Amino acid sequence: MSDTTTSFTDDESKAVYRVIAERRDMRHFLPDPVDPAVLERILRAAHQAPSVGLMQPWRLIRVTDRDLREQIASLVAVERDATATALGDRAAEFLRLKVEGVRDCAELLVAVLAPDDGTVFGRRTLPDMDLASVACAIQNLWLAARAEELGLGWVSMFDPSALAKLLAVPEGAKPIAVLCLGHVTAFYPEPMLTQENWRRGRPWQALVFRDVWGNPEIDP
Amino acid sequence: MSDTTTSFTDDESKAVYRVIAERRDMRHFLPDPVDPAVLERILRAAHQAPSVGLMQPWRLIRVTDRDLREQIASLVAVERDATATALGDRAAEFLRLKVEGVRDCAELLVAVLAPDDGTVFGRRTLPDMDLASVACAIQNLWLAARAEELGLGWVSMFDPSALAKLLAVPEGAKPIAVLCLGHVTAFYPEPMLTQENWRRGRPWQALVFRDVWGNPEIDP
Repeated sequence: MSDTTTSFTDDESKAVYRVIAERRDMRHFLPDPVDPAVLERILRAAHQAPSVGLMQPWRLIRVTDRDLREQIASLVAVERDATATALGDRAAEFLRLKVEGVRDCAELLVAVLAPDDGTVFGRRTLPDMDLASVACAIQNLWLAARAEELGLGWVSMFDPSALAKLLAVPEGAKPIAVLCLGHVTAFYPEPMLTQENWRRGRPWQALVFRDVWGNPEIDP
Repeated sequence: MSDTTTSFTDDESKAVYRVIAERRDMRHFLPDPVDPAVLERILRAAHQAPSVGLMQPWRLIRVTDRDLREQIASLVAVERDATATALGDRAAEFLRLKVEGVRDCAELLVAVLAPDDGTVFGRRTLPDMDLASVACAIQNLWLAARAEELGLGWVSMFDPSALAKLLAVPEGAKPIAVLCLGHVTAFYPEPMLTQENWRRGRPWQALVFRDVWGNPEIDP
């Protein structure tokens, strides 16, 4: 267990802010393999996430079989086309974006929300807090990967029931992320969707209110 | 913008793993105020989270009004009782736990999932990826707080529609977290629910599979 009694130094805090700022949703990968010891560290970091009622509802399936990876790539390709159609006006623009790196990345992980284990604590009125817990685990994994100079891309462009079937996921469980992990040439300096003029983020101040929805928080 | 061209040093990586390992879901707080500059850094970190289609669906309401905080505390108290009843056998044991710090913490933030803005990218088959994005923002906030030696507790024990009404949240938006933030005497050395013998976590290896659900990943 880590020593929780000493304060974070300024340098340590800076590193935390740095990794948060420089994490990117990556779509471009190099084929070089990931060191197994590094992968293990990243998986442990995911597992240190908070979870509602300590239910730990995340499951991670490491895809090592090439045929299986190919089938996942096909599922993503099908959904990419369906998304393009749904986007209408912006279909052509969308199809120019690189939206996944399933075939290119060194490691492919599928994050699955486990079947409901009956946890009531913190979920009686908000049952989907289990999904929130899995997202926290993925965010941990993402930050740890970034600190290891590995890129990660969260792909949610697939039919979850088709992917559940491919991975023999039990009734009630749901794949929520195809995670592309691996070495990269460089991290995008800003979110790729901004770089590619798909969408711009808003300033943080626009999303923080005081006491009531819509009331600006001038002086946080 | 940060310089994304230099690698993370060993010390920086260690700091990232340290903050992930030492983050705790806190329920015990000191009343000392949070430095506004620190609060701003933490809010910025939350806003650097990934989001599906760059939709940034998080809103944070900073509760500064004491009456409003008191009303939120009452909502949590009502749901705590309802949870105890729902737990049946374990009700008495549950009621001995400290499950929130709404009245005690220096800063109270409510995280709200914004109304659906029509984002299709990455959400056509998985519409609740917006909730996952808000959870990632909260995890960022949590880690940044820990690096600043501030505790944070995610309370999800409330009726979301009652809280939505209190905060004048628009139709389609949903409060998902009451976040208690503030100074603490000490961080729990392990999850409080484990310390208090409510529940134990499982080893990470039990939750990682190879290629198919349930197949152990022996050598990641």
